[in-house]
Parts: sequence; C-alpha cells; structure tokens
Amino acid sequence: MLVDFYELTMGNGYFQSGLRDKIVYFDVFFRTIPDRAGFAIAAGLEQIVEYIENLHFSEEDIAYLRSKNLFEEAFLEYLRTFRFTGDIYAVPEGTPVFPNEPLMTIKAPAIEAQMIETYVLLAINHQSLIATKANRIVRAAQGRTVLEFGSRRAQGADAAVIGARAAYIGGCKGTACTLTDMRYHVPAGGTMAHSWVQMFDSEYEAFETYCKLYPQGATLLVDTYDTLKSGVPNAIRAFQNVLLPQGITDCAIRLDSGDISYLSKRARKMLDQAGLTNCRIVASNSLDENLIRDLMMQGAQIDTFGVGERLITSKSTPVFGAVYKLVAVETDAGEIIPKIKVSENTAKITNPHFKRLFRLYDKESGKALADELCLYDERIDASEPHTIFDPNATWKTKTLTQFTVRELLVPIYQNGVCAYSLPSLSEIQKYCADQVETLWDEVKRFENPHTYYVDLSKALWDVKQKLLKDARQGR
Amino acid sequence: MLVDFYELTMGNGYFQSGLRDKIVYFDVFFRTIPDRAGFAIAAGLEQIVEYIENLHFSEEDIAYLRSKNLFEEAFLEYLRTFRFTGDIYAVPEGTPVFPNEPLMTIKAPAIEAQMIETYVLLAINHQSLIATKANRIVRAAQGRTVLEFGSRRAQGADAAVIGARAAYIGGCKGTACTLTDMRYHVPAGGTMAHSWVQMFDSEYEAFETYCKLYPQGATLLVDTYDTLKSGVPNAIRAFQNVLLPQGITDCAIRLDSGDISYLSKRARKMLDQAGLTNCRIVASNSLDENLIRDLMMQGAQIDTFGVGERLITSKSTPVFGAVYKLVAVETDAGEIIPKIKVSENTAKITNPHFKRLFRLYDKESGKALADELCLYDERIDASEPHTIFDPNATWKTKTLTQFTVRELLVPIYQNGVCAYSLPSLSEIQKYCADQVETLWDEVKRFENPHTYYVDLSKALWDVKQKLLKDARQGR
Repeated sequence: MLVDFYELTMGNGYFQSGLRDKIVYFDVFFRTIPDRAGFAIAAGLEQIVEYIENLHFSEEDIAYLRSKNLFEEAFLEYLRTFRFTGDIYAVPEGTPVFPNEPLMTIKAPAIEAQMIETYVLLAINHQSLIATKANRIVRAAQGRTVLEFGSRRAQGADAAVIGARAAYIGGCKGTACTLTDMRYHVPAGGTMAHSWVQMFDSEYEAFETYCKLYPQGATLLVDTYDTLKSGVPNAIRAFQNVLLPQGITDCAIRLDSGDISYLSKRARKMLDQAGLTNCRIVASNSLDENLIRDLMMQGAQIDTFGVGERLITSKSTPVFGAVYKLVAVETDAGEIIPKIKVSENTAKITNPHFKRLFRLYDKESGKALADELCLYDERIDASEPHTIFDPNATWKTKTLTQFTVRELLVPIYQNGVCAYSLPSLSEIQKYCADQVETLWDEVKRFENPHTYYVDLSKALWDVKQKLLKDARQGR
Repeated sequence: MLVDFYELTMGNGYFQSGLRDKIVYFDVFFRTIPDRAGFAIAAGLEQIVEYIENLHFSEEDIAYLRSKNLFEEAFLEYLRTFRFTGDIYAVPEGTPVFPNEPLMTIKAPAIEAQMIETYVLLAINHQSLIATKANRIVRAAQGRTVLEFGSRRAQGADAAVIGARAAYIGGCKGTACTLTDMRYHVPAGGTMAHSWVQMFDSEYEAFETYCKLYPQGATLLVDTYDTLKSGVPNAIRAFQNVLLPQGITDCAIRLDSGDISYLSKRARKMLDQAGLTNCRIVASNSLDENLIRDLMMQGAQIDTFGVGERLITSKSTPVFGAVYKLVAVETDAGEIIPKIKVSENTAKITNPHFKRLFRLYDKESGKALADELCLYDERIDASEPHTIFDPNATWKTKTLTQFTVRELLVPIYQNGVCAYSLPSLSEIQKYCADQVETLWDEVKRFENPHTYYVDLSKALWDVKQKLLKDARQGR
C-alpha cells in the first residue's frame, strides 16, 4: 500500500475501461545529476526485486479500499489475486548512468505497470542518490577510508539502514548502522561517544577502561574537554599503559570538533613522538567531498573519514529526480505504438518507444565513449564503423571504428518471473568501482565536468521527430 | 538493531565497568533551525513510544552480536531480557521549539539511555524536519490548501509514509501516500498521471472516461499536450458533457508544468467564461514556500498546492541536527551531578543538569514571551514579578509581571511505563496551529526572523559557569 493513491484510481479506471490487459511500456529515467556532477550511480534494484516478489494486497488493504467508496467490487476482487506478470529490464546496481537514458524499462499490463510506479521510483531515487553522493566523497578521499556515520540524521529508519547499503555501493568501507551489517553485511563499527568519556571521573580513566575492554584497534574520542591539552595526551598514556605492553600497536584517535586539519597535524606529531606511528587518526564533523578535498590539499593527517548527515541525506542535493513515463503501448495485434509526453518545458519531453541502451567503449583504453539509445529491434555491430550524432545538434557526428559494445539494460523479470541472479553487495561495490574507472577523468571532475554523450540512433531520432510534429499539429 | 554500533560497545563497556545501573540524564536538543527560520515544530514522539514499547533483542540479534567476538556472554544474556525502565519527558508533538532547549530528557540506567539514542534522534530529527518545513509551506499558502505529494522522491519508505504524517502535523490537509491514510488517517487523494491521458486515443476521451468514473470532484491533468490550446478546452468540454448534466459543479484541473502563475490566470478566465466558477485549480511542480509566496503575490489563481520533493526531503535544509548529550549523572546516594560537554566550537557547549522547561506567555495577548530553562527543583511563580536575562548578555534583563507559565516537558515514561495518552493526529495538527498562533509575527517571518528568547534561570546559569571554569582549569 506504499503507493500513490492515483495509481489505484487509475487502476480501477483501466479495469472498468477495458484497458486492464493493455500492454504498456514505461521508462524510469532522470533529467539532472545531483551536485551538477558528470554521472550518477544507479542503485536500488535489489529492493525492487524484493518488493515485486512480495507484492500483494491483504484483506485489510482491500477492506480499507472498499471503505473509500471509489472502487468497483470486481476491481477489489481482482486485487485479491494481484501479482506482477510483466517484464522488467534494468541497468545493474553500481552502473554509472546519465540523464535521459532508461535505468529501467517496464513492460506489463497497464494496471500492473502503474501499481509498482511509486515504490520503483522511491527505491531508485533514494539509493541512487546516496550511492552517487558516497562515490563523490570516496573519490575525494583518494584512497583513504570513508565510513558512513549518519543514521541519527537520516530521513527515517529506511533511510538509515538502506542508505548505508547504498553508501557501501558507492565505495564506503563500513557503517555505524548495526542493522545494515546484520541485513546486508556492510561492516559496522563504532567505539565511543562523548557520554562514555563524561561518565567516568576522568578522561584518562575512560580511555584506560576502554583500552582494557577492546584493546585491538581501540579508537579513543579525544575532544570532550580539550583535544591537544587533554585528549591526545590521555590517549597516548592509555595506549602506552594498556596496549603496548600487550604488543598491540593498532589503535586510533577520533577528532569530532575544532579545526580538524590543524588538530590532525598536531596530533600526528604528538603520536609519532610517542612512538605510536601505527595509531590512525579518524575525523568526523560535517564532512563532505568539498571539505575532504580541501583537507587533503592542506595535508591533513587523517586516515579515516567518518561522514554523517551530508552523506546520508545527500545534503547538497537531497533529491534524485527519476521519473516514470509511458513510452509505448501495444495494440491488440501486438504492434508497439510509441508514445511521447510533450511539455511546455522542453527538458521534460520524453524519449519515446521501447528501447535498448548500449555503451560504447574505446577498444584500446577501455574508456566509455558514449551511450546510444536504440529502438528495441536495433543492434550495434562493433565490427563495422559506427556513426553517432548529438541529438541536440545533429550535425555533430563522429564515426567510431575501434570500439566494443555492451548492452546496459539486462532482463530482471520475464513474464513475472525473476530472471536475474542478484549479485552480492561486495560484488556490486567492486563492479561500481571498476565501471567508474572506465569514465574519463573529465567526466569525473567535481566542478563543471564534461557532459558525457547519450545519443539516439537515427531510427529512434526519426520516431521522436515524427511524434513531436504530430503533437504540434494537434490531435 | 537500528542502533549505532558504538551504543553496543559502550553498553558492553558499562556492563563490565560496573556502570550498568548508573542513573544518567540525557537531553535531546538542536542548535540551529532549518532554513534559518525563527522556530521549529517538534514531532516524532509517537514513533518513539511505539519503539520503546517494542524494544527488545531477538535471539537472531544476539547470535549476530555473539559472532562479532566483542561482547561478554553475560552482557548478551542481559540483552535477552532488556527493556527500557527509565523516565522520559518530552514536549508534545506539534509544539514550536527553539535551539538549545530540550525537546526530550531521558533519565535511565546508562546502558538503556545509550541504547535508545539512535532511534530517538532519528525519529525526532526526521519528523521535526518535515513538520517544520510543512508549516512554513502552509503559512506561505495563506489559507489555501496544501497537499503532500512527495512519496516517490522520499529518502526511503519510512520517509514517504511517516514523512507524510509529519507534513500533516505541520498543516498539510492530505497526502498522495495511501499507506499514510491507512495507518495514520491522513486523507489520501489523487486522480491521474500523464500516462492516463496518453493511454487513450485522445485527451478528450481520457477526460470524459475519467469524469464518468469519478464524477464527484473529478480532477483532470491538463498539461500532457498543450495546457491552454488542448488541455483546458478538453477539460471544460468533459465537465460540461458529463458533470453538469448530473448537476455536479465540484471539479478541478491540475497544472504540472509551464509557468503556473500565467497558466492559472488564463485557465481561470476560460473556466469562468464556461460557467465553471466552482472548478478549482490545483498546481504542482517544484513548489516550496518561496515559490508559493511569489505566486500568491502575483495573484496566481491557485486553490490547492500539491508539494512534492521540496517538502518530503526538506530540500533547502534536509537535516534537523538534534543531538543527544549527557547532562547529569546520579551518585549511588542519589545526588544529581551536572555534566557539561566543553568544545572548541563554543556553539557546541551544552546546558548541564536535569532541567525543566517553561514557556512564559503575555497575559493580555496570549503571545509567547520567552522560554526559560530551570534546574529540576525550580518553579516559576506567575503571581510574582519575574526577571529574565539573556544568557549571552547577562546585563540584558527584563522583569515580567502580567504573564502565565506553562511547563513544556511533560512525563512520557515513568519507570519504563508509558504515562502519556497519545493525542490523535488531527488533535496534534490543531494544537500545532494554535501554538504557532501564540508566536509573534516577528518570530514567524520567513527571512531574518526575530530570535526568540531561550533564557536560563540564575541558578542554572551559575551551575553552567562553574562547570566551565572547572573544565578550563583542567581535570
């Protein structure tokens, strides 16, 4: 029942208008990339598969709908055995994606396609948002560890738990959220809050107690009273008194306030002078990719970044605007009729028809050159020269010769049956990192990146122009 | 298990250090108001009560924790029968609240107080964020209806469902989210998407079919092809052919793209000329309080605003930064020892001790004058003149004579038993609107509002100064 109410009024309407079994095609795509970045990371597919596997209406749901006095009894009866029977194609989780290309295509009877819209969008919008943001932050950290620490500032429980899953896809190494570890095997970690330090009679006693309990990798929070005058010296004393006699050198301090660039450099010196060269420095406190880039430039001595609210809410751009648009309908004879949504905002005009999505890679460097949207019955033959053109400036053409082709939309459901073997989360994380590697640095730039090409095949471009002209001439 | 991992490591640590039963006091408070507004709206309490009622560790949870090889077996055994046995005080949902005052105070054994931290913060942060944003948007609409339409752009399922609940507290009249209606009785509504219009051979046929199915209050989406040339004329024709013969004049059109100020004025004229003066105009598309204020100023003819992503994510400020800080501990003899967190960022210094929170109202106007934080054993006697002072500029004093006092923190839990009768959601919505009425217009201003006074009693101020001096002199 996590569904926009209009899906139900439309569903009942299709049911009563003889459109119940009409086969329709919807695309999920987005129009702009968060943070004006050069690419986004697709995520959320696994939750959509879980959702579709469990999709049904309970007796309680149906009783609630009946109480609205809006729905025909035959429609409510139909919902009682409702399940998804259509086809779904999607790009795998972790794939870098670009505006106006389908992340998912749904082919199904009208009511079914409409009924899954809300959850499909919600799952893709939420997780792609967080995976995209996490990937930016991880790239800014240039190989240093990034951990997700944002549960308490997340927008609800799912945002915390599943957001941490998406952050892991984007490249975070772990999370503070215990449930995400339990459910998705994202390593959870965490040591102490300020309250631990305050609970003891002295900061040293708090540190010493902690080191005795958790000697291996003990991480001490050093900013409760005064980082350099009290926190770091007490931490050094606790490490020396408790850990070193056991031969343990794996330990860390955490900075959570003040100027962490300055404090990290001073703390590093103090730790090194005490012989604690293996002691790591963890920093948290309002971090994001911009601050991390600055800290790296300033030579801050930070080994691990704990990133909270700015990651888990994608604070700088907290919305991933994927939409769900009708692109074709089938006639009773099985002919696919393309559909377009014209808009007074030209950016809102859709790419019509049932389509395929190909990514073209340079054979030598392995780098991605362009994506091409084709009609459903088109193929790209990599053994022959292939000419692509910019759909917004058709005179800009380029002929590729040395290239490979990969189809991005893969079958997830066929006739309501899952046809996809879900990869593990660590496989997704690795795939994401590998795929980001195939992008040119120019596309990965944080500010004002190069716009990656998403082209239309000549055949698709012709269909689109014809539909636009038809619409302009009125119907 | 939706808990930051460090709550578990600390919990195990308290257990092993003899601090298991130590009574501690934590405050939940925030430091800055989203959108630099003059006040926020507290929300999320009902979900915290539900959480505490259900709080327990399952065998599966305990097996998972055991697999970490970090926790003592006696601690895991203790978790098996874990429940919350402490006291909670909180401001009722819908209360306007201000920085640095407790929205909630928890008194409990250390482990218990620590274990609920993550969820308590998550619930208050999420719902207060959305209720605060919704209240801004509703105030901008000056009495016109505001509906929550954002499920598909929400940050996860809870953000959609519970976010719509919070939006209702802030003053929205309804939602698109069906589940929020079913669970929380927030009226859900919705009519059609562009796909409905595209599914039929013509726009008129789509409209006519819809009006026949749902004549009462039929709302037609008019921007699929061309709003003024096609959408509005077809809607008028469908209303005239289907609704008017049945004597129905309650209907609406929805604008979802283009310049909705211009389009609404043109559409209003066309509808009025066709005699459809009762036909309402609904607008959606990237609305928020700023755009709505502008549309109102321009005389846009809009009766209902459907607000999506900018409300459900509080896009302009997507984080409500409430924190959970230790303010006191009890000795074995039952003495309450105040605690303070000093910080290199002075804004991060806490107000220590177990406290009460009072709101002082002007007797004549009923307007809120100031809030005052007192020690737990202080009272304010409204029958005698009362002097308040600015804690940041103690020479700024004011003596009140004609005032009333209301205590804001009310008992929610006592010894682990819920002592609070949860109000209905519509009662909370009404309470919120009434309480916002008690604020001066200067505090409600959207830009650069007056800073409402949150003062400390002299006794509390003295405790804070002493703790700061002690901390400065080192421990």
